[in-house]
Amino acid sequence: MSETNLPVIDSRMVVSSRIRLARNLKKYPFPSRLSEEAAREMKLELHDLLKEYPHETFDFLDMKNVTSVQAGAMTEEHLISPDFGRNGEKTALLLGREKTLSVMINEEDHLRIQAMGFGSCLEDLYRRINELDDYIDGKVEYAFSDKYGYLTSCPTNLGTGIRASVMLHLPALTRRGLMERVIHSVSQVGITVRGLYGEGTQAGACLYQVSNSYSLGISESETIALLNRIVAQICESEKKARENQFPDLRARDELYRSYGILKECRMLTSAEFRTLYSKVRLAAEEGLLELDIPALDRLFIECQPYNLMLTGDSESENERDQRRATLVRERMRG
Amino acid sequence: MSETNLPVIDSRMVVSSRIRLARNLKKYPFPSRLSEEAAREMKLELHDLLKEYPHETFDFLDMKNVTSVQAGAMTEEHLISPDFGRNGEKTALLLGREKTLSVMINEEDHLRIQAMGFGSCLEDLYRRINELDDYIDGKVEYAFSDKYGYLTSCPTNLGTGIRASVMLHLPALTRRGLMERVIHSVSQVGITVRGLYGEGTQAGACLYQVSNSYSLGISESETIALLNRIVAQICESEKKARENQFPDLRARDELYRSYGILKECRMLTSAEFRTLYSKVRLAAEEGLLELDIPALDRLFIECQPYNLMLTGDSESENERDQRRATLVRERMRG
Repeated sequence: MSETNLPVIDSRMVVSSRIRLARNLKKYPFPSRLSEEAAREMKLELHDLLKEYPHETFDFLDMKNVTSVQAGAMTEEHLISPDFGRNGEKTALLLGREKTLSVMINEEDHLRIQAMGFGSCLEDLYRRINELDDYIDGKVEYAFSDKYGYLTSCPTNLGTGIRASVMLHLPALTRRGLMERVIHSVSQVGITVRGLYGEGTQAGACLYQVSNSYSLGISESETIALLNRIVAQICESEKKARENQFPDLRARDELYRSYGILKECRMLTSAEFRTLYSKVRLAAEEGLLELDIPALDRLFIECQPYNLMLTGDSESENERDQRRATLVRERMRG
Repeated sequence: MSETNLPVIDSRMVVSSRIRLARNLKKYPFPSRLSEEAAREMKLELHDLLKEYPHETFDFLDMKNVTSVQAGAMTEEHLISPDFGRNGEKTALLLGREKTLSVMINEEDHLRIQAMGFGSCLEDLYRRINELDDYIDGKVEYAFSDKYGYLTSCPTNLGTGIRASVMLHLPALTRRGLMERVIHSVSQVGITVRGLYGEGTQAGACLYQVSNSYSLGISESETIALLNRIVAQICESEKKARENQFPDLRARDELYRSYGILKECRMLTSAEFRTLYSKVRLAAEEGLLELDIPALDRLFIECQPYNLMLTGDSESENERDQRRATLVRERMRG
């Protein structure tokens, strides 16, 4: 990729960016064949090691002490993968204070180093994650082959072990039924598009994760450049799909009404919230509503079921729908 | 009716009260057989006569100079009957400055004296209309028979010529499908229940006119007492139909969302407005929203199609839906 021809990303549609690196330690077997005892030893070793890291302070969360509700909430925040909490004897999370930097221990690989942030910020994330990776690399010996690069449990992570991903809000492409075409077309160049929490979970919110499909035979910076280029193209398509939509008063009316409902509702299901979030975010992106978009995106996470369960006692779904409505109303008015 | 057993009306549900008296002048034939020339003469005579009335100042609106849009708007305000404007050579309206007192000339009868006001106020209206009736009676000779009382074009108006009516907001009885039973039951005691602008026009707004069916063989005060008693009973039934409804959060949620939509919509059809008006009025009646109910009822009139046409140039329905939304939004926020 030529540095002089950087893609211009319409950042309104970019919700968040993430990078993770898959790494394994040479001296331990891969997690699937790792004994619980060795896993416990590794957790302590990495905990000690990261205590000394100068650029971030990590909390150590041994997953065996984490409830399924807490694990569910962390999954909704994209801090851990869905199954990570179920294997608590082996797994632990090292979580930076701002939650932007973290390390999963004994997920599919020994280390899944992750950096994330709101908006379009892959380069910045890469700088931070690379710094942490270099620090760890100076203290342990990674499993590495000159031919395949970093060795990983799954072959799709061989090479640099990098997975960069960008979360996009694509309501117009979704509504016009164009997403399948987009997904197919970018898959040809090694880019995967999935729903919010994986395959098919974007329903209503119109949120999609766009990420590189493999990391072998391509450098980290090439991966990021490729992803940025594709993200810019998808955003351009979304912009085109929105053209001539908002001079139409009926289309604007729908968005404003969604805002009115969020400001006044007393019951709000998770599914309805996703739909209304998308409409109100679209209104903000199009300058129809003056809203703090990152605050709206944080609210989106807080309204997910496990995150709501975190702040309430064991409640019925009905009670959660009520608490979700209260939370949303307060934020929308404030 | 015993004065000591006055019915208690739950006034939250009472939108407005009206009384009209049907009167004819002895020296002219009934309007259907009245020549245009004689009608013009009568209009002038009554105009002159009411100039001297000490308790109210009347504007004289010769209906031949009134556009169909203006007539439509006055019909929506219940100032004239729907066909009154179509016969402009014969008809005129004498309209008090507050629009609470008026006289239609050459509707079905020579004079239809009318008094109306927001809320439950039949006694007060009767006092005012009686005063005006006495004044006119002192200046002209009414067509009157000792046997039938005031002589009128239609036999249902014989006797006192009074028609008292109360507009009620009955969303719970409507929703529970109980209105037909109410209508049938009160018809047995000489009370008629109709929609907002007559038969079957209550759709969405849940507004009903309750009035006496005849005025022969019953005094004015008995008519008003009967109507008040029936209105109190209907309000009691509505209250019962609302019982245990609003502890239910889903029911409250629906009302609050309606309020949210009214505050944010950019397009609003007449039919949808009627439905949302009813829900928001119900919320105010039940103390769920702090709203100025008479202001809401005035807004209801302003949002009727002809009233909207009055304030805008010849527009499409689409443009009116847009202007209705703007008007409603401003009022709901203010």
